[in-house]
Amino acid sequence: MTPVSAPSALAFRVESRCTETAARTGTVELAHGTLRTPVFMPVGTQGTVKGLSPRDLTDLGAQIVLGNTYHLYLRPGHELVKQLGGLNRFMAWDRPILTDSGGYQVFSLGELRKVEEEGVRFASHVDGSRHLLTPELSIEIQQALGSDIAMIFDECLQYPAEREQTRRSMERSLRWAERSKAAHTKPDQALFGIVQGGFEDDLRVTSACAITGMGFDGYAIGGVSVGEGHQRMLHVVEHTVPWLPEDSPRYLMGVGLPIDMVEAVARGIDMFDCVMPTRHARTGYLFSGWGRVNIKNARFRADQGPVEEGCTCYTCGNFSRAYLRHLFVSGEMLGRQLNTVHNVHHYLNLMRTIRAAIREGRFGAFRREAAAAWKEESSND
Amino acid sequence: MTPVSAPSALAFRVESRCTETAARTGTVELAHGTLRTPVFMPVGTQGTVKGLSPRDLTDLGAQIVLGNTYHLYLRPGHELVKQLGGLNRFMAWDRPILTDSGGYQVFSLGELRKVEEEGVRFASHVDGSRHLLTPELSIEIQQALGSDIAMIFDECLQYPAEREQTRRSMERSLRWAERSKAAHTKPDQALFGIVQGGFEDDLRVTSACAITGMGFDGYAIGGVSVGEGHQRMLHVVEHTVPWLPEDSPRYLMGVGLPIDMVEAVARGIDMFDCVMPTRHARTGYLFSGWGRVNIKNARFRADQGPVEEGCTCYTCGNFSRAYLRHLFVSGEMLGRQLNTVHNVHHYLNLMRTIRAAIREGRFGAFRREAAAAWKEESSND
Repeated sequence: MTPVSAPSALAFRVESRCTETAARTGTVELAHGTLRTPVFMPVGTQGTVKGLSPRDLTDLGAQIVLGNTYHLYLRPGHELVKQLGGLNRFMAWDRPILTDSGGYQVFSLGELRKVEEEGVRFASHVDGSRHLLTPELSIEIQQALGSDIAMIFDECLQYPAEREQTRRSMERSLRWAERSKAAHTKPDQALFGIVQGGFEDDLRVTSACAITGMGFDGYAIGGVSVGEGHQRMLHVVEHTVPWLPEDSPRYLMGVGLPIDMVEAVARGIDMFDCVMPTRHARTGYLFSGWGRVNIKNARFRADQGPVEEGCTCYTCGNFSRAYLRHLFVSGEMLGRQLNTVHNVHHYLNLMRTIRAAIREGRFGAFRREAAAAWKEESSND
Repeated sequence: MTPVSAPSALAFRVESRCTETAARTGTVELAHGTLRTPVFMPVGTQGTVKGLSPRDLTDLGAQIVLGNTYHLYLRPGHELVKQLGGLNRFMAWDRPILTDSGGYQVFSLGELRKVEEEGVRFASHVDGSRHLLTPELSIEIQQALGSDIAMIFDECLQYPAEREQTRRSMERSLRWAERSKAAHTKPDQALFGIVQGGFEDDLRVTSACAITGMGFDGYAIGGVSVGEGHQRMLHVVEHTVPWLPEDSPRYLMGVGLPIDMVEAVARGIDMFDCVMPTRHARTGYLFSGWGRVNIKNARFRADQGPVEEGCTCYTCGNFSRAYLRHLFVSGEMLGRQLNTVHNVHHYLNLMRTIRAAIREGRFGAFRREAAAAWKEESSND
């Protein structure tokens, strides 16, 4: 395994660094445009960020969205998307797209899937049809979708896991990473490797060294998404980042809360995705300050204030908490739409704030304020 | 009953007339702005046109929306809406609003309501609580909501109905109209009378004469909404309009298909409302030409064309039938949003086309083309 120089599908440049932490700003040039990092990527599972049109996303300043290989493979099918001009054209989104590999989604099927060396056998959640998702097929799908960034197909692991089980899974992911890389032939699509290894520091190091040895356009940390705990997640990030190259973007998959992102940026992460802002919006949880409010709470019945004081999003600029509560309790879809606008704005705005703080040498101070505010919010819960 | 001169809550001016038909264009000045008629009013039952933000509505050129007294009375409550600054402010809509009286909604409750001379007793569809909606309460609610146009509280009738039953109901509606008018005290809110009388020509005349004798700011024709049949509806319109004053706006309630509106305009109608464009959108029926397509149809699976060739709406300008079909079959809310944008655009654009045709002396020709195109579409069904 010899390192391979980055192909032209991606060019990463670090533009400024924090002097206190490993935080950095940069640009990632991709086929459909340039990202400013650190960046948050809203999740558009089935070829749409739920409740937002591409116009809404552009207004919100979204730079890139995520598409899900598993879902788009099953419906409408990657070949159809390709025939219709690729995922960008299909969903009328002209900025970059990152596709996941489907590994996490098939893992999430639980009883409906079976992992073998060849790949993962699973039954479709749509119609029960049987499929075998392999590294080669995952790459074929992602190439057909035409995303700017494809991810290698890896095995996800159920926690808690035995060390031996974690090691075997990590090693299989390495074999699948090699197969993914070998299958990848699209010159204008970047390919990211994924570091696995659970919560075993030495296995993370082994995985990171092997993955970086194979040479990818960027490096992701997998297996620490929401639900595994803030401190454990940060521990993994802290012990993995030093083994990743300085001159490639680093992507922490499936993370997280705003405070998680601040702390991960401080440890050198450049890219994030998470369903939390969109999913929370649809269930009535709205981000405000460093906390969350449940909009259906009766105390908002006559509340004329915005969801978040000082927020510049369309929702906060026009609608009261009382109105959003009314829409939510009435089951009106506009409620889910306006909530989504606010939560996605909250996330994207946090990333803008983080980038400015790093550029202007204030990130260390910002991080301390965030930690204090978050601690206070948490104690109010 | 002496005619009363129109108060300052509404000023209507006819601007141009068709030489072949009773069609006319005009303006209706209201507290929150001026309407250009003929006008279509999207329905915003619970303080939101389902799936559209006020920004979307403004982009689509909506001039006025409808709010439902019954729904807003039950949830969130008219007193709360008043406390929060009125319905315009609550829903962040700064253009005119018309509120219905709740008469049709309580009628639609079927077994859950009982009509008495005092009003209609009913059980809430939300929580089963018991209420008595009277003309006085309906007006109180509409005044609290602060709409530009309030409607008198009338009795709606189940068809088919005996002539005697129709007469008794029409007469009760006249008594309720007087009570509504007596209860109305808001000087910047227009009040419309409603002509009832079912499908009995002479009862329609009796009702029209009595209602116009009471003197209202505008006159509606009730009891002929969607489902009663195109020809029967037009017959009622044709035999009622001559008994309504030339110098007041005429509103055909709950109508209808595009062709219904063309023919009603030809008979002198100025205002329309209907749930069809928004409801159809959510169930996947999209207006195209003079017909409708069912977007979930398998024949659209790989269809790269827009819903409607030549349509200038956001949906048609950006998304293929294949994508809209994908969103619909995947249950994605963006599908309902984009479908609603198209259907509402289709209706509002038809009204723009009608107004231009009347102004430019082409309405007779336009109407004949529409009738021919609709006949051809219907035979293709």
